[in-house]
Amino acid sequence: MVVLLQRPLAAVAGLLWYCLTGVLSIPDPRQREALMKLEASMQTGGQMILTDAEKQLDALLFKMKQEEIMRADFPPAMHFFKARTLIQTSPIFSLLQKMPKGGALHVHDLSTTSIEWLVKNVTYRPHCYMCCTDSRSIRFVFSSQWPKALPYCSPWILLENLRAKLVNTTDLDNSIMGNLTIFTDQDPETVYPNQEVIWDTFEQAFLAMWGLVTYAPVFRDYYYQGLTEFYTDNVMYLELRALLPELYELDGSIHNRAWTLKTYQDITRDFTAEHPDFFGARIIFSVHRAVNASVMTGIVEEAMKLQRDFPDIMAGFDMVGREDSGRPLWYFRDALSLPAEHGVTLPFFFHAGETDLEGTEVDQNLLDALLFNTSRIGHGFALPRHPVAKGLSRKRGVAVEVCLISNQVMQLVKDLRNHPAATLMSENHPLVISSDDPAMFGSSGLSYDFYEAFVGLGGIRSNIGSLKELAINSIRYSSLTLKQQEKALALWQKKWDKFVSENAL
Amino acid sequence: MVVLLQRPLAAVAGLLWYCLTGVLSIPDPRQREALMKLEASMQTGGQMILTDAEKQLDALLFKMKQEEIMRADFPPAMHFFKARTLIQTSPIFSLLQKMPKGGALHVHDLSTTSIEWLVKNVTYRPHCYMCCTDSRSIRFVFSSQWPKALPYCSPWILLENLRAKLVNTTDLDNSIMGNLTIFTDQDPETVYPNQEVIWDTFEQAFLAMWGLVTYAPVFRDYYYQGLTEFYTDNVMYLELRALLPELYELDGSIHNRAWTLKTYQDITRDFTAEHPDFFGARIIFSVHRAVNASVMTGIVEEAMKLQRDFPDIMAGFDMVGREDSGRPLWYFRDALSLPAEHGVTLPFFFHAGETDLEGTEVDQNLLDALLFNTSRIGHGFALPRHPVAKGLSRKRGVAVEVCLISNQVMQLVKDLRNHPAATLMSENHPLVISSDDPAMFGSSGLSYDFYEAFVGLGGIRSNIGSLKELAINSIRYSSLTLKQQEKALALWQKKWDKFVSENAL
Repeated sequence: MVVLLQRPLAAVAGLLWYCLTGVLSIPDPRQREALMKLEASMQTGGQMILTDAEKQLDALLFKMKQEEIMRADFPPAMHFFKARTLIQTSPIFSLLQKMPKGGALHVHDLSTTSIEWLVKNVTYRPHCYMCCTDSRSIRFVFSSQWPKALPYCSPWILLENLRAKLVNTTDLDNSIMGNLTIFTDQDPETVYPNQEVIWDTFEQAFLAMWGLVTYAPVFRDYYYQGLTEFYTDNVMYLELRALLPELYELDGSIHNRAWTLKTYQDITRDFTAEHPDFFGARIIFSVHRAVNASVMTGIVEEAMKLQRDFPDIMAGFDMVGREDSGRPLWYFRDALSLPAEHGVTLPFFFHAGETDLEGTEVDQNLLDALLFNTSRIGHGFALPRHPVAKGLSRKRGVAVEVCLISNQVMQLVKDLRNHPAATLMSENHPLVISSDDPAMFGSSGLSYDFYEAFVGLGGIRSNIGSLKELAINSIRYSSLTLKQQEKALALWQKKWDKFVSENAL
Repeated sequence: MVVLLQRPLAAVAGLLWYCLTGVLSIPDPRQREALMKLEASMQTGGQMILTDAEKQLDALLFKMKQEEIMRADFPPAMHFFKARTLIQTSPIFSLLQKMPKGGALHVHDLSTTSIEWLVKNVTYRPHCYMCCTDSRSIRFVFSSQWPKALPYCSPWILLENLRAKLVNTTDLDNSIMGNLTIFTDQDPETVYPNQEVIWDTFEQAFLAMWGLVTYAPVFRDYYYQGLTEFYTDNVMYLELRALLPELYELDGSIHNRAWTLKTYQDITRDFTAEHPDFFGARIIFSVHRAVNASVMTGIVEEAMKLQRDFPDIMAGFDMVGREDSGRPLWYFRDALSLPAEHGVTLPFFFHAGETDLEGTEVDQNLLDALLFNTSRIGHGFALPRHPVAKGLSRKRGVAVEVCLISNQVMQLVKDLRNHPAATLMSENHPLVISSDDPAMFGSSGLSYDFYEAFVGLGGIRSNIGSLKELAINSIRYSSLTLKQQEKALALWQKKWDKFVSENAL
C-alpha cells in the first residue's frame, strides 16, 4: 500500500518556529536535532513512511552516496556529455536503472528512441534516400521511385547503393549518427559556444530525422522501439509530447493527424498487450510556437476535435520549440481561450519558464500557463524566481516537469547542484523528473535524470523516500483518471516491493 | 525622508490568491496585470514609493537594461575575470559607480585595497625584503636588519637593491602583483581547474601579502587607502572582517591585538574627520576556522574582552577560511556558548552556507549560525535549499550578505543569473550586496557587485526601487545602533537625492 502523510509535522513545525523566533544564544542540541529533522521532513519524500526493507536499502544508498560525493570528478557538477561514462560506473546508477520509476511525463516524440537503432536499423531498410543540405545537415526520404530533388540539398543518394560501394560503412554510419544527435565526444563548450548554436544544431537534428520517422512503417517501429527502451529502463508509463506529423507511405500518399494519433493508440495497445506490466502511454499534441495566431486557432480547434475523438490516448495540448525565440503564450490567448469558451475540455501541459531571460515577455509564460489552468508546467526552470507563480503551482498541485540534463545541455545551468529545482525538492514542491529528449542528448529512459536529481539536486540528504515520492509523483501528477492512477500505483507498488526486497541487503 | 512600506499589499495578495485557487481557463487581463504587479511588488524594493525624479531615473535605467540584455556577451553570464572590461563600458555600471550604495558589510581586511597600490607604493618603501617559497609563492618582511631566513624560502632579497639592478622594473612588479591576487587574464577555468586549486592560490596570496600589511606603518596606510577606495566608489560605511594580526615594527617588536584594533579605531576617526560625509567603519574580529576547540575558547574569551574595551569600533565576531575544509560551527559550540553563559554581549556575524556540499556537516552551518543567534549570514549561498533556516532568517530579519563575484570566482556558480540569491531577491528576503575580497578578485568597492545584482540577479524587473532598498538594507542590517542608523540614513538620503536629481533626465 502506498502511504502518503499529509504534512503531520506541520503542527510541530509551527510550534518550533514560534519557540525559535525568540533569541537563543546557546542552542539546545535536542531542539537543533528537531529542526534538522523538520527540515529533512520538508523535502520531497521527507514524510514517506518506510518499511524495514526500505530502511535497509536506504542505509545502503546513504553509504553509496557518501562514496559518490568523494569522487574526484563529481558527475552532477560536470557537463552530462563528459559525465555520462562516469555515471555508468556508479553503483547508484545501476540501482536506479533497476528501480521502478513510474512514468516519464515530459518526453518528446522524436527523441524517445536511440539514434543507434535509427541508423543501424532504419537507414538500412530498402528505398531509403539521403541528401546533404547546404548547411551541412542531412535529409532522408523513403520512396518507391527516385524522389524529386529538395531545394538546398544535394541530389538524392540511395543509401543501399552507397553502402554497397563502401568497404566499410562504419564511418558513414557514424557520420549519419552525428547528424541525428547533439551529443559529442569533443568539448561541448567549444562545439556549442552559446545557446543559439546549440538550439540551431538541435533543430537541424530533428529536421534530419524527420524524413526517416514520418515514413509510416518506420513511425510505428520507432514508437514501439521507444516504448521498449523506456520499459527496459523500468519506466511503466509515458506521456509523449507529439507533433502528430502527417505520415507518408512509399508511394508518397499522406495520412492525416487523426491517423497518426490512432497509430499511437494501436501501437500502445499492442505493446501493453505484449507487456502486461507496462501501464500505457498518452499523447500531448504539441505544435511549434513559431506559428502565428490564426494558424494556432485552427490547430486548437483540431486539438479539441482530436481530444473528443480519442479521449483514451489523447491527454491534452502544448507548444514546443525554444521559448526565447518563439511566441509567448499570451500572444496566443485568443486561440487558447477557445476550449473554455466552447465549454470543451482540452487539458493544457504548457512548457513555461525554460529561460534565463528574467523579467522579459517570455519569462511571463509561467504565470500565463497557470492562468490558462495548465495541468503541469514543462521545465519551470525560472519558477523559483516567480513567487506568485510558484505559490499558485504549489497550491493548485500543478507539478513542474524537471528535466535536468536537458537544461544543462541546452545551457541554462552548468553545475546541476545549482539547478533551481534543488530548492523545489528541498520544499517538496509538486514535481516530477523527466528526460525531455533523451536520444538527442545521448541519454536514455529516465535513469540518468533520476541519478542527477538524486545525487546532484538532493545532495546527501535525499533518500529512498525521495526516490519513492518522485516515482509516485509521476503517477499522481499524470493525466490518468483517479481510478487509472490507483491501478497504476498498485502495479508500481508491486514492482517497487520486488525491487526493494531484491536490493536491500 | 526614507519611506518603507510594511507589505501593504499583503491583504490584496491574500484576496487574489483565494480567487485564483479556483479554476480559471480564460484569464482576465486585469487579474493578470494585478498578479504581475503583485509579483513585482514582492521583490527587493518592490514596495518602495518613488519620487517623480526617481521615476524618471528608473525609466532611463529600464532603457539601459533592455540594451544591456541585448549585448552579445551578457556580462553576468560570464566569468567576472572575462566580464570586467565589458562591465566597465556599461552605462549602467557608470551610474552605479556614482550611486550612493550605503555600507559594505562583508569585506575582508586584507583585500580592501588595490594590489597595484600595494606593489607600486608599499613594495617601493625602504627596508622591504622578499623571498620566493618552494611552492612558487612569495613572502615579504620589513626589517632594519637583514632578516633571518624563512624555512622553505629562498634567501631574502632587499627589493630596493634588486630594483636598482634592473633596467625596467615592470616585469618584476607585474610578477609580484600576480602573486598577490587571483585575478588572471588567461582562461580562469584552465588556470583554476577546481575549487581546491583556487582556494589554495587564494590562501597563498594572503600569505604573500601578510608580511607587507602587518608592518605597522603599512597597516595604517593600507587601511586608510582601503577606506579611500570604498569612499571613492560612493560607499559611506564599512564593516570589516578583520583578523587583527599582531603588527610588527622595523626593529622586530610586536604589538598585541588590542593595539591593532585601536589602530583601526584611530585611522577610522582620522578618515571620518577628513571626510565628513563618510559615516565610519566597524570591525568584526575573525579567526580562521582551522583552529581547534581549545584555541577557539581562548580566542572567544579575548573577543569578549575586546568587545567590552572597544565597544565603538568592534561589531562582533566571526570565523573565516573555506567552510568545506574547515571545522563546522557545531564543533566550536562550547566556545561559542561562552558569551551567553557569561551574560556578555558578543554579536556573531557567521559565514555560513558558502558551500555546494548539500546535506553534509558543513552544510549544517546555516542552521547552527541561526541557532547561535547570528546577526547576519555571510554568503548563505546554500540558504534557499534550507527551508527551515531560510524561514528563520526571514522571520528574524537576519540578512544574508550576498557576495556574487566571490561566489562565481570561487566556483560555486558560473552564470550569476543562477545564483540562489536571485530567488531571495524575488521575495525581498533580507539581504545586502557585498564584495568579500574585491582586491583579490580584481574588483573594487561595491559597484561591480551591485552591477551583477542589478543586471544579473534582478533581470529586467529589478528597478531603481531595488537599488534603493539594497542601499537602505546595508544600513538597516548593519551593526550600528538604531540612533546611528537614523543618522546614517539621513546622510545617505541626502547623497541619494543629489544622485537622483543629477542623473534623472
